[in-house]
Amino acid sequence: MSATFKTLDVLLNPCSIAVVGASSNPMKVGGRPIAYMKKLGYAGKLYPINPKAEIVQGLKAYPSISAIGAPVDLAIVAAAAAAVEDILREGIAAGIKAFVVFSSGFGEYSSEGSAVQARLGQMCHDAGVLLLGPNCLGAINIRNHVIASFTTAMEDHDLIEGGFGFVSQSGALGAYWLDMVFQRGIGVSSWIATGNEAGVDVSDAIHHLANDPDTRLIGGYIEDIKDGPAFRDAALAAISAGKPIVLIKSGRSQTGAAAAASHTGALAGEDARYQALFDQIGIVRVNSLSEMVAVARLILMQPPASGPNVGVISVSGGAGVMLADDLDEAGFSVPPFDDDTRARVNDALPGFVSANNPLDVTGSVAGDSGIFSRVLDALGSAPDHDSFVLFIGLMVSISRDLSDSLVRAFANRGKQVAVVWIGAPAEVVRELESHGLPVFADIPEAVQAMKTARQFSAALEKAQRLEGTRWHAPLPVADRLEARSEIRAQDFIRTHSDLAFPEQLLVGTVDEAVEGVTTLSTPLVVKLQSPDMPHKSDHGGVRLGIADPDTLKSTVQDMLEIADKTRLRLDGILIQEMSSVAQELIVGFKRDPVFGPLLLIGRGGVEVELRPDSKMAYLPLTGDAVLSMLRGLATAPLFEGYRGGARGDLKALAQTLADLGNAFAAEPSIEEIEINPLALTRDGRFVALDALSQHRLAQEGQASERPPRDAQGAERQKSPGLQEL
Amino acid sequence: MSATFKTLDVLLNPCSIAVVGASSNPMKVGGRPIAYMKKLGYAGKLYPINPKAEIVQGLKAYPSISAIGAPVDLAIVAAAAAAVEDILREGIAAGIKAFVVFSSGFGEYSSEGSAVQARLGQMCHDAGVLLLGPNCLGAINIRNHVIASFTTAMEDHDLIEGGFGFVSQSGALGAYWLDMVFQRGIGVSSWIATGNEAGVDVSDAIHHLANDPDTRLIGGYIEDIKDGPAFRDAALAAISAGKPIVLIKSGRSQTGAAAAASHTGALAGEDARYQALFDQIGIVRVNSLSEMVAVARLILMQPPASGPNVGVISVSGGAGVMLADDLDEAGFSVPPFDDDTRARVNDALPGFVSANNPLDVTGSVAGDSGIFSRVLDALGSAPDHDSFVLFIGLMVSISRDLSDSLVRAFANRGKQVAVVWIGAPAEVVRELESHGLPVFADIPEAVQAMKTARQFSAALEKAQRLEGTRWHAPLPVADRLEARSEIRAQDFIRTHSDLAFPEQLLVGTVDEAVEGVTTLSTPLVVKLQSPDMPHKSDHGGVRLGIADPDTLKSTVQDMLEIADKTRLRLDGILIQEMSSVAQELIVGFKRDPVFGPLLLIGRGGVEVELRPDSKMAYLPLTGDAVLSMLRGLATAPLFEGYRGGARGDLKALAQTLADLGNAFAAEPSIEEIEINPLALTRDGRFVALDALSQHRLAQEGQASERPPRDAQGAERQKSPGLQEL
Repeated sequence: MSATFKTLDVLLNPCSIAVVGASSNPMKVGGRPIAYMKKLGYAGKLYPINPKAEIVQGLKAYPSISAIGAPVDLAIVAAAAAAVEDILREGIAAGIKAFVVFSSGFGEYSSEGSAVQARLGQMCHDAGVLLLGPNCLGAINIRNHVIASFTTAMEDHDLIEGGFGFVSQSGALGAYWLDMVFQRGIGVSSWIATGNEAGVDVSDAIHHLANDPDTRLIGGYIEDIKDGPAFRDAALAAISAGKPIVLIKSGRSQTGAAAAASHTGALAGEDARYQALFDQIGIVRVNSLSEMVAVARLILMQPPASGPNVGVISVSGGAGVMLADDLDEAGFSVPPFDDDTRARVNDALPGFVSANNPLDVTGSVAGDSGIFSRVLDALGSAPDHDSFVLFIGLMVSISRDLSDSLVRAFANRGKQVAVVWIGAPAEVVRELESHGLPVFADIPEAVQAMKTARQFSAALEKAQRLEGTRWHAPLPVADRLEARSEIRAQDFIRTHSDLAFPEQLLVGTVDEAVEGVTTLSTPLVVKLQSPDMPHKSDHGGVRLGIADPDTLKSTVQDMLEIADKTRLRLDGILIQEMSSVAQELIVGFKRDPVFGPLLLIGRGGVEVELRPDSKMAYLPLTGDAVLSMLRGLATAPLFEGYRGGARGDLKALAQTLADLGNAFAAEPSIEEIEINPLALTRDGRFVALDALSQHRLAQEGQASERPPRDAQGAERQKSPGLQEL
Repeated sequence: MSATFKTLDVLLNPCSIAVVGASSNPMKVGGRPIAYMKKLGYAGKLYPINPKAEIVQGLKAYPSISAIGAPVDLAIVAAAAAAVEDILREGIAAGIKAFVVFSSGFGEYSSEGSAVQARLGQMCHDAGVLLLGPNCLGAINIRNHVIASFTTAMEDHDLIEGGFGFVSQSGALGAYWLDMVFQRGIGVSSWIATGNEAGVDVSDAIHHLANDPDTRLIGGYIEDIKDGPAFRDAALAAISAGKPIVLIKSGRSQTGAAAAASHTGALAGEDARYQALFDQIGIVRVNSLSEMVAVARLILMQPPASGPNVGVISVSGGAGVMLADDLDEAGFSVPPFDDDTRARVNDALPGFVSANNPLDVTGSVAGDSGIFSRVLDALGSAPDHDSFVLFIGLMVSISRDLSDSLVRAFANRGKQVAVVWIGAPAEVVRELESHGLPVFADIPEAVQAMKTARQFSAALEKAQRLEGTRWHAPLPVADRLEARSEIRAQDFIRTHSDLAFPEQLLVGTVDEAVEGVTTLSTPLVVKLQSPDMPHKSDHGGVRLGIADPDTLKSTVQDMLEIADKTRLRLDGILIQEMSSVAQELIVGFKRDPVFGPLLLIGRGGVEVELRPDSKMAYLPLTGDAVLSMLRGLATAPLFEGYRGGARGDLKALAQTLADLGNAFAAEPSIEEIEINPLALTRDGRFVALDALSQHRLAQEGQASERPPRDAQGAERQKSPGLQEL
């Protein structure tokens, strides 16, 4: 891990808190934190700061931070934007160790606001003091009753301590999350809404939760990551510590991204850049708070499933079928029970029900809930099944019996269990969940949660595989790029990998062509090589299917004339043997200004836009990792002899691309290399039929380290070319 | 419309009801209907039948139906299975016009039960009396308080009259539906659970709701349709009457289908057969009750959207972005507002918010809900937008103001409006919904409902286009099929369509081949023609790329010898010019034993199994309908000159396939025709490169009408070949 993070302990575990702009009205922004903390019994000292009041909400008020006359850990600032700079200056002088600034009117508002915000960040940075905000909804630590927030979501709920931590770049989404988790009875550890991120950002917050012993699961809402490496390091730290991360990243559609840009003032960027990072390091993505909360209940209450085999028990045959449908679509299996289990179930069931999976215990349990109980006991230890879903509908009058049976058979059996109960009485839901059995109100919600939860086992493996990876730093967007001709791009590729090219000859004159061509087999392709004509086939710089010396001569002559007439810088004329192409790949090495250098692999050919099929991951990559990308393509079998087609050596190709990618990543002067097509020939060889590279023109400091974290956002620009696949 | 349906009026609007097996215990099966109807105030006469009681639940009881001594419309039978046959016989004699039989232990239980069930059906059929069940949860008409059901779902809810009707082949799913709709405040018209369907089936029930003036929207849960034409007719009648049908059809996965087969004893069949029918006639499918209920609220409360353009108004920028993401993925647009609307919004909004779409009114409405009100008024008439989604989170303290603004701006504006309100107080939800503004608890639920609702406009158009269609009856599964050779299959195709084949020559001897081949261009393909070798390329019956007379001779000679040695019936040796293939289609004409003859069109070639791409619809089809299927393929552009590739005339091909399909459908002796590949040549012609037909061996009565509806289920078998594409 290379990034450094701010330590948030003093923010979330302060011994004393001043509230600047404290209000006697518990419904006002400056009144809510005091009201909440008084109500919940915050054990530290609370100092309302209000020069116009003696007493605020029953507490002695002070005219200023410095007037307190005692050391204070945290200052909450609920003052007008214009006053904030002075308040922070005074607070720093008085020994404040952390600020939470609610005030808005900064970077989100105007360029003057941005300037002030930058000064606040710098001031705190220089003083070694934490700054959360400005324009933020604050932070909460449920366990010690620190409510440094004015969210209204704390109004109507009893707080529940638990293992779910949350980080949000949107205060509003943070508030909705709080409302939803408390509504559904989920316990919370800490909650941090980062606002304008002049100091603490989401990566600091995730890193904090990764190290917070109270947090077992990390949720988040993000719109825009500014420091890619820090985010990756923080996320990997959490996942490696066994804490799943489940994120909403908005702006995944074109429309949404445009809206996000106008909303946050930041460029959300192509969503694929984020998705690739999430996939690579094992962050699980969801698209709504409901979905996040559903999966969180399962993860927090139940162990992970060790495999895909699910046992389904239903009081309704129809619901059992619907569960099997949804599970199947979500990638689970619903295999038969083993013979022993079947025998036990048959003993427990009335004769006319058979011990299939899904197991239909029929509505007869309504008459004899003992049946249900005996069946569940018989199933509890089915050895081949990794998890169970139990479906119940209504049955309100016997719901207590049913829930007792469920708890006895399944609580703490070490296997994942989800209950779907349509029309469950609220008290039964509470009872079951108090025993760690999550209850879902309908089938899709449960299956979606199981599906998402299943990704976390893979996430931990991914994190472990990535341990010790030395990531390449991102480079700022280049001011100016320069293309290289195919033959020059080949130079770099040949130096750093064993990628194959067609048999070829580079000539400068017609005579050289005629003389040298005898070593090549026809038909031939002739290509003009110039940095000034990177897209040569669009401009007459490529001629295919040349089979005789006269045509070759005239073609080379033509191209030399084109180059001369249009004053191209000429690297020569490239003559290659034509390959017999079975399938095509497109391979790109590019640089993302936030997350660093990356590899894209996609299927090539005419259909690429109709049915896109590509994978993307950040460098460095091992050969195995690239092989996973290749095999992850929907059309991967076409490259390995599918139905008698050409069979390439994907494993060798993967290692070649990994070598090349890692060399590319380490060479900051190269912005991009594209190999298109990388053909699989009919005789099973992978051959690069064209290549192109873009180079960064030397600039002072450009190839060095990335700029400091706070300074990056403004000058960031659209990453070029990533949407090409 | 050709099917005839049972009229359910006397079942759902009886003037008098006898309950056989009436219980004094209102929690028992025989007690619940009486208890419910007494509580709700059923206005007709209620006669408990119980030989052991004088009074049941305060009503005079009778020892038998005949003892009532007055005409009775409906008898509910809650007796032991063994008693049911006698009860029905007595009831028919006493003039009962409809029975609802709750009793189980019939077809779902044993073969004896099936036999009794068949007798019950026949007895009622002969007497012209309705039979619902046996083994059913009954029927309900909310408006006149007929509760001929023992569902427990009526226990805990206030009933709400409304326009949502429901039909279910599962009593349990029917009960969950009732619980869910009343829970969410949706009004119901009638509800029918058909059980074992010895008499009334889902098609009768759908047809009833199609004609029921109280029903505006029809929901359903189905597992297995026995009479395809009746189901299609009933559904089309409903949709043509402007009543959308939204169905759950379980068993859509392999696992689920197997579970359904074991559950219902019927073969659920490949799901694609159902999906094709739904798509063709405009039935909208959902996969859960929650989803059904969400879309029902939108449809029942709001007008349909006349187009894809959605205006989004959100109190949170982040939530607006998430809405834009979900809407985009669901196929909606979120385009900018027109200039006039923008100007009005800008007037209404504080200066720093811009009138984009999504429109972020920011949390500032919490301070001044008048802003929200003015913005909504300004937006209410945005002429370019077909629907609106409003997002609110929490804001409990001003929720009344917000809801008043919403109602004033959007209720009854003639545009579809959905409200997403996370953490909405229950009374505000009720208030908004009482004004016809549906409130959803999170974004995905609302967008999914909008997406599903959008399909209904298309459904009505489809139903109108299908008006007057003379559907072909399904045929029972053939006992025995016989293949025909390619050349014989060509005969039928050539007779009934203008589909092109390669230039070709059919020969019987080597001499004929040598003599005739001078008219053909090389290279050639030679194919053995025999009904005994339908898959000829697997058995050496196809030789490609023959370019000279000697090879031709020896090839023809070889094939004649193969035919002779293996005693094949020989139709000749077919010699064809080889085509230069750009793309391939697979075309199949098949017969579904439930829904009738159908056309399948899929992309062909090596990738077909990796990335399936096919469409299926029932015959007859117009050329336009077939064109829609072709253009509906993901890879359709590849057949119309995509990126400089071959350009075929899809419109002409569609008409050709429609003609051929309709001829096939009308010729009951042919079970199946497959054309694979139907090639698009490089010069843009569609040519059938192979064809195969399967013929039904003549059997008594086979080619005539389908069997009577009640007799079909048992002998139905797996439809062959539909999974091939």
